[in-house]
Amino acid sequence: MAKTEQLQQKLGDRLVLDPERIAHYAHDSSRAEPEGTALALVLAESTADVSAALAWANEAGVPVSVRGAGTGLVGGANAYPGGLIISLERMNRILELDAENRLATVEAGVITAELDAAARAQGLFFPPDPASARTSTVGGNIATNAGGLRCVAHGVTTDAVAGLEVVLADGRVMRTGARTRKNVVGLNLTSLMVGSEGTLGIITTATVRLKPVPPGIPRTFRASFASLQDAGRAVSLIVNGPAQPEVLELMDSWSVEIIESFHPSGLTAPGGAMLVGQTVGLDAQDKAEAITETCLGAGADDVEISESDSLLEARRLSNPALNARGLKISCDVGVPIAQLAEVFHGIDAISERHGLRVSTVAHAGDGNLHSTVESPDSREGIAAADAVIDEITRLALSLGGTISGEHGIGSVKRHELPWQQDAVTLDIQQSIKHALDPRGTLTPDRAI
Amino acid sequence: MAKTEQLQQKLGDRLVLDPERIAHYAHDSSRAEPEGTALALVLAESTADVSAALAWANEAGVPVSVRGAGTGLVGGANAYPGGLIISLERMNRILELDAENRLATVEAGVITAELDAAARAQGLFFPPDPASARTSTVGGNIATNAGGLRCVAHGVTTDAVAGLEVVLADGRVMRTGARTRKNVVGLNLTSLMVGSEGTLGIITTATVRLKPVPPGIPRTFRASFASLQDAGRAVSLIVNGPAQPEVLELMDSWSVEIIESFHPSGLTAPGGAMLVGQTVGLDAQDKAEAITETCLGAGADDVEISESDSLLEARRLSNPALNARGLKISCDVGVPIAQLAEVFHGIDAISERHGLRVSTVAHAGDGNLHSTVESPDSREGIAAADAVIDEITRLALSLGGTISGEHGIGSVKRHELPWQQDAVTLDIQQSIKHALDPRGTLTPDRAI
Ligand SMILES: Cc1cc2nc3c(=O)[nH]c(=O)nc-3n(C[C@H](O)[C@H](O)[C@H](O)COP(=O)(O)OP(=O)(O)OC[C@H]3O[C@@H](n4cnc5c(N)ncnc54)[C@H](O)[C@@H]3O)c2cc1C
Ligand SMILES: Cc1cc2nc3c(=O)[nH]c(=O)nc-3n(C[C@H](O)[C@H](O)[C@H](O)COP(=O)(O)OP(=O)(O)OC[C@H]3O[C@@H](n4cnc5c(N)ncnc54)[C@H](O)[C@@H]3O)c2cc1C
Repeated sequence: MAKTEQLQQKLGDRLVLDPERIAHYAHDSSRAEPEGTALALVLAESTADVSAALAWANEAGVPVSVRGAGTGLVGGANAYPGGLIISLERMNRILELDAENRLATVEAGVITAELDAAARAQGLFFPPDPASARTSTVGGNIATNAGGLRCVAHGVTTDAVAGLEVVLADGRVMRTGARTRKNVVGLNLTSLMVGSEGTLGIITTATVRLKPVPPGIPRTFRASFASLQDAGRAVSLIVNGPAQPEVLELMDSWSVEIIESFHPSGLTAPGGAMLVGQTVGLDAQDKAEAITETCLGAGADDVEISESDSLLEARRLSNPALNARGLKISCDVGVPIAQLAEVFHGIDAISERHGLRVSTVAHAGDGNLHSTVESPDSREGIAAADAVIDEITRLALSLGGTISGEHGIGSVKRHELPWQQDAVTLDIQQSIKHALDPRGTLTPDRAI
Repeated sequence: MAKTEQLQQKLGDRLVLDPERIAHYAHDSSRAEPEGTALALVLAESTADVSAALAWANEAGVPVSVRGAGTGLVGGANAYPGGLIISLERMNRILELDAENRLATVEAGVITAELDAAARAQGLFFPPDPASARTSTVGGNIATNAGGLRCVAHGVTTDAVAGLEVVLADGRVMRTGARTRKNVVGLNLTSLMVGSEGTLGIITTATVRLKPVPPGIPRTFRASFASLQDAGRAVSLIVNGPAQPEVLELMDSWSVEIIESFHPSGLTAPGGAMLVGQTVGLDAQDKAEAITETCLGAGADDVEISESDSLLEARRLSNPALNARGLKISCDVGVPIAQLAEVFHGIDAISERHGLRVSTVAHAGDGNLHSTVESPDSREGIAAADAVIDEITRLALSLGGTISGEHGIGSVKRHELPWQQDAVTLDIQQSIKHALDPRGTLTPDRAI
C-alpha cells in the first residue's frame, strides 16, 4: 500500500483517510459500484493541491478518480480499489465575470446553477443546463461535455468553453484556449479535454462563454400525440421549420405516468407521447403558436401554451422519478433527427418482443433518447433488461446514431465502444491517452 | 533520394514527377517560399491513393505537405525539399446531401463555394465562408479551422464539422464523429483534427452541418466613423445589443482607399473607419435600422442600408487588393470584443511611432484583425514592417488576445507560439503529434 504521509504533509486535513468520509465520495449516480475501497480522498482547495496530489499518485502508481458532484450516470467518478479520489467540490469560486466580453472564469467545483445565477444577475446566462444543474459542477459538465434541455438552441457544453486550466497526470499545469471568440493557435486542446471524462487531466479552472438572456417572457408549450412515431415526425418538422424552440423534449406515456406518480401535477399522455418545449424572445408567443400548429398538423390531438415552467420542471424530474422506482437500466443513444420516428417504432417492437416495458424520455430536438427498461428484480431480470438496452443501442447505431449523446462512456458503457468505433479510432485514443498519461494514473480503463 | 518506382506502380499518372507541374503545387498564398524542390506530387483521387502515398512516404522517411487549394496565408501547404506533395484537389465530389438532417458528406477537395451552392439548391447553406470561398477547399477550411465573414453569427468551421475520415501518417484510415447533433463517445478527435493544419492526418472526407437559408431579403448596412476607436466601441455595443448581425466587418480609411483603387465602387472613409455588415431574416430591415442607430449613437457620421451586396463584396476584395500593392506583411490577431477600441488606439500609436502606415480590416464582430504594414522594398524596410507586426501582436496578447484568429500558424507565425503558449502547453502538443505521427512525416516543424 502506498505511503500517504508525504502527501499528508503537503495537504494537511485536505487529505482524508477516514473510510466513512471517503465512502461518500466513492461512487457517482450510476448503477456501477466501486470494485473496492479507496485509499484516500483529497478535498482540493487550489490548483496546487490538485497538482501535488496527482504528482504524488503518479509517482506512487496509485490510480486516481476525479470527482465533481458525483451526478454522473456512467461510473466515471467511481473510486478505484486502493486509489486516490480527488474532489473538486471545494474549488467553488467564481473568479471573474466579464459581462462586456460575456466570459466567466470559474473554479471547476462551482455548481452549474450557481454560475448561471451569477450570470443572470448581469443579464446573461450559462447555456449548458443538464437536468442535474442544481447539483452538478461546471468541471463535471465540461469533463462529460454535458447536454441538457437547452442544447437544441445553444449546443452542448463544449460550445460554451473558451479555455481551461488543466493539471496533467504528472502534476504539470497546462493552459488551453483564449479569451477571444476565434483562436486557431496550435491544436484544439480545449475541445480535446472537454468530454475526456477525467482520463487526460483534471480541469481546475474554466473560462466559459455566457449569452444574453433573451427579452420577453418565455412560453412553454405542450403537444400530446396518440402515437409516439407521430411525435417523432413532428420533432423533425419543428427542427426544420422557421420557428426555433429553446427547448424541445419528449416523454412517452409511461414516462409521464412515472413522473406524475413521483410528483403529481396533472399530466397525462395515455397511449402516446407528449412533446414539451419552450420558446423565448419577444416573439415567444408567435413561435410557440407556430410550433403547436406544426404539431397539430403532424397528428397532435391536444396542444397548450403557457407562461408557467411546470411542464419543463416535470421533465427535469424524470431521472429522480425513475430512480425512485428502482429503474436504472437505461441508455443515452442518439439518432439523426429524421430517424426519430423510426427509432421510436423500433423501440416499441423491441419492447414488445421482449415483453418488457420501456419508458423513453428524449432531448427530442437533439435526437437524444433516454430509454429505461423495466427490470424484474432478479439476475435474469437484469440480464433481460440489459439485452433490451443492447438492442435499442444497436438499432440507434444502425440508423446512423451514437451510443451516447450526453452521459458519456465511463465504465458502464465501455463494452459498447467497439460497436461504434473502429479499431484505428479506438487505438488512436489510447495513443493520445498514453501521450498525456503514460503511467495510466488518471481514471484508468474507462471512457476510451 | 527516395525511390518513387514503388509508389508509381500504385498510383500511375496520379504521381507527378515533372518539376514544372510540381512547382505549381509547391507554395500557398503567403509570403513564405518553399526552401527547396519537392520530389513528387500526388494528385489523389481516392482515400486509398492518399493512404498509399502517405504510407510510402512514412516508410521512406519523406516529409509530406498537404494541399487543398493553396489559398492558405501562413505557409502551411508549402512543399518540403525532397518532399512529397499530396493534393486533394481531385477529390471533389459531394458524396451526400441529407437535407432533412442538414448534413452533407463531401470529399476534402470540394470547393467551399460549390458545397454552399449545392446546399442552397435545397434551401440550406454551408456556414463557413472565408473570403477565399470561391477557391479554397472544404478540407483546407477544416484543416485551418477557417473563419470568414459569417462567423459572428455562425461560429467558425469547427462548429460545422460533424465527422471526418482521416488518413494517419502510417496510412491507416480513421473515422471520427457521428451524424447526430450530440455525441460524447470517446475523445473529441474531430475537433482535434480541425485546425491541425496537416500535422496530424490528412482529411479525405468530411460530414458537415448545414443551416437553413433565412427567409426574406438580406440587408447590407454601412456606418462611417471619423474615429477608428469609435468604430471599435460601436462593435462592442452592437455585439452586446439586441439586434444581431450576420456579418460585421471593419475597414479603416487606408484599407478603403486600397480596395477602392483596386476595384472602384465609390467607397470613401476619410480619416476614420467604416463598419459594413449584413442582417438577415424577415426582420432584416428592423435589425439593420437598430444597428445603424447604435452606430449613430456611438459617433458614426453617416449610415446607409441597402439590399445590394456590393459593400461586402468590397470587403472580400481586401486581400487581393493588398496583394496587388505588394502589401503582404500582416497579422491575424484577435482580441476580446470589449478591447477593440483599445487595440485600435494602440495600433495607431505603433504606426505613428514607427512612421509606417498600417491598413486594418477586421472581422470586427469576432474581434479578429488583419493589420497590414507598408513595407519599403528593402531588407531594412521589411524588418521594420515585421517589427510593427510584432508589436501589434504583443499588444493584442497583452489585451487577452491571440496571435491568430483564423489563418493559423504554419511556418510564418511559428516563432510567435511561445508568446502565447507556455512550455507545458507547447510540449503537450508535441506529445500528441508524436503519438499520431511518430516519424514526423506529416507537415513537420510547422503549426505547433
Ligand atoms: C438527476 C440527474 C439529471 C441529469 N441530467 C443530465 C442532462 O440533462 N444532461 C447530461 O448531459 N447529463 C445529465 N446528468 C448526468 C450528470 O449530471 C452530468 O454528467 C454532469 O455533467 C456530471 O457533473 P458532476 O459534477 O456531477 O461530475 P461527476 O459525476 O463527479 O463526474 C463525471 C465525470 O467527469 C469527471 N470529472 C468531474 N470533474 C472533473 C474535473 N474537474 N476534471 C476532470 N474530470 C472531471 C469524472 O471523473 C467523471 O468521469 C444527470 C444526472 C442526474 C443525476
Ligand atoms: C483572398 C483570400 C482570402 C482569405 N480569406 C480568409 C478568411 O476570410 N478567413 C480565413 O479563415 N481564411 C482566409 N484565407 C486563408 C485561406 O483561404 C484559408 O486558410 C483556407 O481555409 C485554406 O484552404 P485551402 O484549401 O486553400 O488550403 P491550403 O492553403 O491548401 O492549406 C492550408 C493548410 O491546411 C492543410 N490542409 C489542406 N487540406 C488538407 C486536408 N485535406 N487534410 C489535412 N490538411 C489539409 C495544409 O497542409 C495547410 O497547412 C484567405 C486567403 C485568401 C488568399
